[in-house]
Amino acid sequence: MHRAIATVSLSGTLRQKLEAIAAAGFDGIELFEADFVNFRGTAAELRRIVADLGLSIDLYQPFRDFEGMPEAQFHRSLERAERKFDLMEAMGAPLVLCCSNTSPLSVNDPARAAAQLHELAERAARRNLRVGFEALAWGRHTSRYAQAWDIVQRADHPHLGLILDSFHTLSLKDDPAGIAAIPGEKIFFVQMADAPLLSMDVLQWARHHRSFPGQGDFDVVGFFEQVLRAGYTGPLSLEIFNDIFRETPNRRTAVDAMRSLLYLESETRERLANGNAPAQPQRVELFNPPPAPALSGLSFIEFAADEASAATLGALLGQLGFRRVGRHRSKAVTLYRQGGIHFIVNAQPDSFARQRFEAHGTSVCALGVRCADPLAAVGRASAMRSQRHDSPVGPNELRVPAIVAPGGNLIHFVPEALGANGLYETDFILEDAGPGDSDAGLTRIDHVALGLALDQLDTWVLFTRAVLGLEPGESLELADPFGLIRSRGVANADRSLRLVLNVSLSQRTRTARTLSVTGGGAVHHIALDCDDIFDTVARLRANGTRFVPISDNYYDDLATRIDVAPELLARMREAGVLFDRSAAGDYLHIYTESFDGGLFFEVAQRVGGYDAYGALNAPARMASQAQQPQQD
Amino acid sequence: MHRAIATVSLSGTLRQKLEAIAAAGFDGIELFEADFVNFRGTAAELRRIVADLGLSIDLYQPFRDFEGMPEAQFHRSLERAERKFDLMEAMGAPLVLCCSNTSPLSVNDPARAAAQLHELAERAARRNLRVGFEALAWGRHTSRYAQAWDIVQRADHPHLGLILDSFHTLSLKDDPAGIAAIPGEKIFFVQMADAPLLSMDVLQWARHHRSFPGQGDFDVVGFFEQVLRAGYTGPLSLEIFNDIFRETPNRRTAVDAMRSLLYLESETRERLANGNAPAQPQRVELFNPPPAPALSGLSFIEFAADEASAATLGALLGQLGFRRVGRHRSKAVTLYRQGGIHFIVNAQPDSFARQRFEAHGTSVCALGVRCADPLAAVGRASAMRSQRHDSPVGPNELRVPAIVAPGGNLIHFVPEALGANGLYETDFILEDAGPGDSDAGLTRIDHVALGLALDQLDTWVLFTRAVLGLEPGESLELADPFGLIRSRGVANADRSLRLVLNVSLSQRTRTARTLSVTGGGAVHHIALDCDDIFDTVARLRANGTRFVPISDNYYDDLATRIDVAPELLARMREAGVLFDRSAAGDYLHIYTESFDGGLFFEVAQRVGGYDAYGALNAPARMASQAQQPQQD
Repeated sequence: MHRAIATVSLSGTLRQKLEAIAAAGFDGIELFEADFVNFRGTAAELRRIVADLGLSIDLYQPFRDFEGMPEAQFHRSLERAERKFDLMEAMGAPLVLCCSNTSPLSVNDPARAAAQLHELAERAARRNLRVGFEALAWGRHTSRYAQAWDIVQRADHPHLGLILDSFHTLSLKDDPAGIAAIPGEKIFFVQMADAPLLSMDVLQWARHHRSFPGQGDFDVVGFFEQVLRAGYTGPLSLEIFNDIFRETPNRRTAVDAMRSLLYLESETRERLANGNAPAQPQRVELFNPPPAPALSGLSFIEFAADEASAATLGALLGQLGFRRVGRHRSKAVTLYRQGGIHFIVNAQPDSFARQRFEAHGTSVCALGVRCADPLAAVGRASAMRSQRHDSPVGPNELRVPAIVAPGGNLIHFVPEALGANGLYETDFILEDAGPGDSDAGLTRIDHVALGLALDQLDTWVLFTRAVLGLEPGESLELADPFGLIRSRGVANADRSLRLVLNVSLSQRTRTARTLSVTGGGAVHHIALDCDDIFDTVARLRANGTRFVPISDNYYDDLATRIDVAPELLARMREAGVLFDRSAAGDYLHIYTESFDGGLFFEVAQRVGGYDAYGALNAPARMASQAQQPQQD
Repeated sequence: MHRAIATVSLSGTLRQKLEAIAAAGFDGIELFEADFVNFRGTAAELRRIVADLGLSIDLYQPFRDFEGMPEAQFHRSLERAERKFDLMEAMGAPLVLCCSNTSPLSVNDPARAAAQLHELAERAARRNLRVGFEALAWGRHTSRYAQAWDIVQRADHPHLGLILDSFHTLSLKDDPAGIAAIPGEKIFFVQMADAPLLSMDVLQWARHHRSFPGQGDFDVVGFFEQVLRAGYTGPLSLEIFNDIFRETPNRRTAVDAMRSLLYLESETRERLANGNAPAQPQRVELFNPPPAPALSGLSFIEFAADEASAATLGALLGQLGFRRVGRHRSKAVTLYRQGGIHFIVNAQPDSFARQRFEAHGTSVCALGVRCADPLAAVGRASAMRSQRHDSPVGPNELRVPAIVAPGGNLIHFVPEALGANGLYETDFILEDAGPGDSDAGLTRIDHVALGLALDQLDTWVLFTRAVLGLEPGESLELADPFGLIRSRGVANADRSLRLVLNVSLSQRTRTARTLSVTGGGAVHHIALDCDDIFDTVARLRANGTRFVPISDNYYDDLATRIDVAPELLARMREAGVLFDRSAAGDYLHIYTESFDGGLFFEVAQRVGGYDAYGALNAPARMASQAQQPQQD
């Protein structure tokens, strides 16, 4: 496919945008008019800059409030169009986007709209330009693609065609199925946008909250499937109005943009291949990466430390019931184990971990995920524009393929074939394999929670979907005493791998302060499962672990909200354990106090098919943490 | 009036909130349930803390999803209510807020709702507690106060009354006039909230975007007038769900909150006094401050500097056509003049200005506004909880009363009786009174634009309304290459005093970077009027002033948007002058390059009754500034 992006989707000056777009591997751009109006150079100069970057200008946009106007306005608009055509000729833009009229002066008369668009197309044809007509979701008389297509058919001019934008169709809950019946060559251009489901005015939604395909809640794959069934062979483009993208460094946004198109193509390719209806003859080549990896849980979590903090962290892990079970063959790296959980503390000088330690203090620097075919997983990641990471490997050590996650931490793909301990038996000199006296009954890693900067949430949602094959859950807003937290879980199908993405909208919450200590994309807590939380908590307290205290009032309130057995309520109250219930099951959990500037642990017990993270209880935890520093 | 505020309106732990509320002079609180659930103390302990702070708990809230339920749920809810009544008794809260049911289980049956509320009130009465019923704007069957009042009348229980919230009425555009007919003693509690007019789901609007009275667009005065006409004598309270208040240090928010109530009372008092309808006998005493001052423009702008930067700034002012006309009698302070504009450069060691210089660099540290009665203006400001500022005064100097604006700059009130130069003749040794050779034809200060942190916009809107008697205009969103800017003008009735409040939603715009250099509430540009912008710009260029260059494409585009005479367009293109047109007149303007980290000047010519600030052209300026550092 010819892949393009509208300049409005990125931050920066026009030149900076073009450089970022070219660097991310796009083929072309949609030029947003305001970017040209404020550009200090001529159309011919822009043409040269764009060409030198290996790009084409595929579309000039938008041309507004044209069709269905009274005669006086119509003639004035034709004049306006001629001036835009002058520019398009000079910059080499072959197509202009004419969006449906929003003016109160416009009349609801498809025949007039068609006649006026015919005249516009005739003017364009004289210069060998083309006009694409698009239904805006908030167009005054034309808001759906079927209406726009009706007008284009009535106008019946070879230089007039249809422009489709997934946002305008999916935001109105319009059915894209009819697109497949439109002749592909009459669709002149396709813009893809995703969006979170929001209850707001569609114009505000469109102008501020669109996102790249795979970052939102729309069925963009279903939309694009219909476009391909129509036989469309033109550019695949992104037109994203997003307040956060306006602020985010544009190189990062451009990489996300390209990843979103590759993901969209590959998902749509799969859907077409699996579809029952006979597809049109394949007229375009869709991106075909290795399949998303089948992951089966976290093999290990690696912490970056120096000698001193490694000792402190080791003592803390001891309190949590972990036992030191190995030393690395060649490096200052220690292995801790409890149940099926492995923690690695890496204090090796001159290592990747040490760089992370120096930048962010004691913090998680890598996750090890188990998978059947690590090389295929890295192949998928590379195809989806993630960077591969190769560490130096010593003698008698395994090479575990790794990639760089957004924010700079590593994700290692650990071969399942190694079994539970194979990796550690090879790389480590194991000291003791049995459970220690301090074992607290922690069995596996339930989830890892990341604290993200506001502009990283969409990046992570797309990364985890496209690269790791995870799927996002519901997006929640939680009240911290000093601001709101947005929280979203992502998990694989069998729930053996769960990540929770937390964003602080405020700079003053603990989540935000953790970020400033440990950098964006930082792990701010690790949740560990157990089979009997009361037994585990008792053992952990005996080991010296301190938990965040929970107000008695929480339990009084809980009893009015949920029908909990009185004896269970009493045990939870005594132990300081929090509780949540869904239709499928229960969640019992408790949080430790923070270690070294932020990181803390959660102990959890899932009962039945409970599939969330006790987010409703996070405010109790955050309020308790906020009360921590002072006597209250 | 008994003044109260809901704890949900402020950030912090419950204890921190209570301390801020008490410090701001409130009489009582609404206790938001989640604040108590997460409070680490008993209800009795809370009662003691609140009493020690001199506060009362006037309301416990909310009690949800009660009325109109099937029998099973109803009995469960009564149990839930008894547990809440236990708490209320222990903490000394006399009244609970029961908001209209949003549950899909509820039935549309006012008689059943009334019977169930009667039973709830009966239970409350046994403990001498009361129940207030409130219509939520998104209640499933009851969303308007008239419906809630109908149910309260049917229930007919002395311990059941109505709770009114301006947000729920005004957000639905419901008419508050009917409130005056409700017996005042059946209104148990009144919550006041303002809000900006937003096109979004009313629940999202209510949960995230309410503001204090005077900060939004609702006619809160008209609402409160009806409440008083009803004969209401209970608490006047604020229940504000606002994302930004959740993040803002709560002492500042609490002062804004108190100011908003004082402003609401005084405005409502005036409206009642001026009303035609015979008011009820005055049953409560409303706040009665000195009237808002009649201001008549800016007398001077004062810059903070040290010796070196004073010289640099002096040279810049020289380029702008200003002439040094005086030295202060006793301080290192210099006076510059052009037309009716006075700039003061204050480099006096150990002065307020020097403190500002050391904190924020060369920057505006004070505005002098002309007014008829400066002492009354300071009295108004003090009554509205602004801090008075007294500077040391030397021999033969005038004492000009001053107050501290949000962010720390000063506003001096200069007596009109002094005439144009009286102040300067007294305090300065004047060197030369005539216009110099470099005079560029600048005549007066058009407006002063402030760069504000996100959490300061509402504070400033309320400050300028309540303390200075200005009125806000439209709120606009403008695109900077690195993020959005929100901009709102405030002005007095005759437009002799105009301020523009700009907020950067992004950290990466020039506006945001100016803030980080010069502190919140900083002046980022000063607009100066002239009578012939082409003549003035030519003279300024001859003096060495450098202006932000504007793209040729801007003028090509302007010609397609607005019908400007070709010769005027050509002159603007040549001079780099920007243009805007309203129905009332035209605005021609141009921006200088930035001085010393941020501050710049605008030169403007207003033609006819143009009443805005050329905001549509701000993106052209911001894009140009963004292209400044690099060759483009």
